[in-house]
Amino acid sequence: MELSRKNEALLRTLRTRHGRRKSGCCLCEGVRATGELYLRRPELVRFTVVTGRGLAAAGEIPGEICRVSEERFAEFAATVNTQGILAVAEIPPEPDPEEAPGAPFLFALDRLGDPGNFGTICRTLRSTGLDELWYTKGSIDPYGDKAIRAALGAQFALKLRSFDTLDRLAAAAARFGYPEVCLTDPHRGENCFTAPALFDRTVLVIGAEANGVGELAGARRVTIPMPGNYESLNAAQAATVFLFEYVRRATTCR
Amino acid sequence: MELSRKNEALLRTLRTRHGRRKSGCCLCEGVRATGELYLRRPELVRFTVVTGRGLAAAGEIPGEICRVSEERFAEFAATVNTQGILAVAEIPPEPDPEEAPGAPFLFALDRLGDPGNFGTICRTLRSTGLDELWYTKGSIDPYGDKAIRAALGAQFALKLRSFDTLDRLAAAAARFGYPEVCLTDPHRGENCFTAPALFDRTVLVIGAEANGVGELAGARRVTIPMPGNYESLNAAQAATVFLFEYVRRATTCR
Repeated sequence: MELSRKNEALLRTLRTRHGRRKSGCCLCEGVRATGELYLRRPELVRFTVVTGRGLAAAGEIPGEICRVSEERFAEFAATVNTQGILAVAEIPPEPDPEEAPGAPFLFALDRLGDPGNFGTICRTLRSTGLDELWYTKGSIDPYGDKAIRAALGAQFALKLRSFDTLDRLAAAAARFGYPEVCLTDPHRGENCFTAPALFDRTVLVIGAEANGVGELAGARRVTIPMPGNYESLNAAQAATVFLFEYVRRATTCR
Repeated sequence: MELSRKNEALLRTLRTRHGRRKSGCCLCEGVRATGELYLRRPELVRFTVVTGRGLAAAGEIPGEICRVSEERFAEFAATVNTQGILAVAEIPPEPDPEEAPGAPFLFALDRLGDPGNFGTICRTLRSTGLDELWYTKGSIDPYGDKAIRAALGAQFALKLRSFDTLDRLAAAAARFGYPEVCLTDPHRGENCFTAPALFDRTVLVIGAEANGVGELAGARRVTIPMPGNYESLNAAQAATVFLFEYVRRATTCR
């Protein structure tokens, strides 16, 4: 099928937050990211733009397929070394506010601004088998094209919930039976490797790169011991340490 | 001081591996990366190109300082949002082949191709207080400008040693009294959270993103348990899990 003018016009608006908000759609580029989208949320796919090469690399593609030349594809692609496939999909709606999470603990991001870090965190979370990712407003748009590329589409496998403030996030968590908030702090707090019950009906909050995590009355603070005495790890590395400390405890401390 | 034609010509060659090899110099850009260079290896600094803004943000700058306008600086900078400071430095020589490492275990990279991952690994290694980073040929140039930016200059605080093959790397390690090689594997091997003596006079090898780690006769294989059953973490995330498992054992298992 040809790429219609209407679809082309839509596609061109989706690299801006404004364009995504107006249309309710997002742009998913690359073989792995579209593969995750097709597998997890096929019902959201509007159409796929693909070259012969992209078609050969992809599995089954749900919905409308628009075949274009490599030259034409390059006009739309954000990356220089394109993989010849991109999809336009509806942005997944958030879970029903009444739908209780099933996760042992909730993982949350407070005003995380970098799409690369956000994407890495989505992939890491996905690899631990957890599926709830909560975040405060002021974080990066989880469905921006950079965030989707960095996550290789892992956000389509997660349940994302957004909140205006950390207070509201904590209140919602408490309502679902996750009363204790643990703020990760680069400088002070309990040692994350020895802190008791760190992943036991808690909310674990990772802060923004530059400013760290916000304040919240009554919250625990947890820190990663850093013998190198070096300025803090980036947010994605810190998230990895916490998430795999959870895996370690879950798989070895029985 | 003015930026001389000779220095400008040198600077322009340093984004290519060929140019770095020919001159023996590298390019270090940004406030944090140059700060690490100035602190750790001031003797290597040839000259610094700086705007008024860059000068205000930097600490003490060793060696020659060339002040330029923002417009002129933008001609040399690789990043769009420049911080107005970049330095040209000699590439640090490798440690003497007879100089024994002091680290409890050796951390090694096998054909790691991505400068972003390489940089993140340098930062993470630095934060654990370890200082030996070994790698095989076929890995990214540790002194490429992207690798230096991604590491925020952390490679200037590390002892880097390169080897033609994994076999030679293992032989050199054994000669220094690190006889056991542990290959990290995304699919099989001992659980990294329970494997005994994982960081006890061993060489821990992280493999390339796409191909994983190479083969080596007699080596142990170690893996990160991944309940999410998701395709492996990227190399930087895997390195973070291993390095902080070391920190955990070193700080809590006494």
